[in-house]
Amino acid sequence: MKKSIGILGGMGPMATADLFQKITALTDAAGDNGHIRVYIDSNASIPDRTAAILAGGEDPVPAMADSLRKLELCGADCVVMPCNTAHYFLPRLEPMTKLPFLSMIEAAADACRERFPGKTVGILATTGTLSAGLYQEALAARGAPFLVPDEAEQGALMEVIYRGVKAGAPPEAYREAFLSVTEGMARRGAACFLLACTELPLAVRELELDLPCADPTEELAKAAVRFCGYPVRTQ
Amino acid sequence: MKKSIGILGGMGPMATADLFQKITALTDAAGDNGHIRVYIDSNASIPDRTAAILAGGEDPVPAMADSLRKLELCGADCVVMPCNTAHYFLPRLEPMTKLPFLSMIEAAADACRERFPGKTVGILATTGTLSAGLYQEALAARGAPFLVPDEAEQGALMEVIYRGVKAGAPPEAYREAFLSVTEGMARRGAACFLLACTELPLAVRELELDLPCADPTEELAKAAVRFCGYPVRTQ
Repeated sequence: MKKSIGILGGMGPMATADLFQKITALTDAAGDNGHIRVYIDSNASIPDRTAAILAGGEDPVPAMADSLRKLELCGADCVVMPCNTAHYFLPRLEPMTKLPFLSMIEAAADACRERFPGKTVGILATTGTLSAGLYQEALAARGAPFLVPDEAEQGALMEVIYRGVKAGAPPEAYREAFLSVTEGMARRGAACFLLACTELPLAVRELELDLPCADPTEELAKAAVRFCGYPVRTQ
Repeated sequence: MKKSIGILGGMGPMATADLFQKITALTDAAGDNGHIRVYIDSNASIPDRTAAILAGGEDPVPAMADSLRKLELCGADCVVMPCNTAHYFLPRLEPMTKLPFLSMIEAAADACRERFPGKTVGILATTGTLSAGLYQEALAARGAPFLVPDEAEQGALMEVIYRGVKAGAPPEAYREAFLSVTEGMARRGAACFLLACTELPLAVRELELDLPCADPTEELAKAAVRFCGYPVRTQ
């Protein structure tokens, strides 16, 4: 019996659509009926994760727990969250359900080690994800060297994420800011980038950049397809 | 209190992802929290609708009813189906629920009348949708002239849909077949096209064609955003 996926989404909605699209594209199915059953709750009212971690903003866990219950009601066999920062709350969410969570952080850190062995990984993430140390811990545990943005770069990156992609701005509005971050980090030794905020793969695609990078959304999609017992499409 | 959307999806999964992406893109929201709550059941095991209508294939209604119950459990306020052919079964589904269905057929026929007044609409759809007369009835009720593919064109179109888009084939594999259909119909008087199978807007985008056409997925997305009480983004 093949398994189904529950997407605890809405953080943000575009990133949720991106994960769903990637799960579908990465499933090696000959027609509609060969695809995985996917349940999605795109819950836009989940309070901002970064604000909760850094500034005492509203706790997102109750809203996330509500979505979790809905995915259980539907009959999902596992849960995935297309939001890196949300993984900070994973230790509080896991005891609430019998469903396994597939971690985007673990999937992406594994991919960095496999695809860029020994290279310094530039972590591009929200200030919340960075402060929580999610990717620093996962990369360190795998012996992978890494680098984070400096304060000015981090400010520019947050503008790209919040006033650019999340606000639906055209790519030209955030091109310069994004390149200032990656070029600065490359000068300090980053040889590849971890696009550790779900809005960033969208930014890289919109900007049509050719950057050596790992996309946690794509790695999570592959992990979910494998978990469900379906073949992963190789391009 | 703003409303939520339930997507009875999986027919196919890519079309479902496309509708979800369009709902998000067409909602005029400044940030994540301004978006609509969307529940999706992408149920890939729903039997093929065209096969059921034309060839006595397995009835898709029980599987669709199962998805409908799950969307009700989640708390959806309306139901949308990103599959034109599936609307043939709407008269059987509507009595099963108190939730209103927003019809893709009605939304798209309204858009044709508004955007292409008096022009002959070429209906591009699966043989199931055409045989069911869904769009012919909706356009005739609005006094809009229309044209359907001839037998050879319809055969080519079904290849584009099933062996092209649904099978994940590269666009070059179906470019010639698609153009043979639209060019033939244009010669017979079609001045614009109704992309009345959810895979076809994906084909037009992948092929980068500049075709005067109405996309029922986009029109359904707009109708859903309006129903939920959110502002529609004008590009």
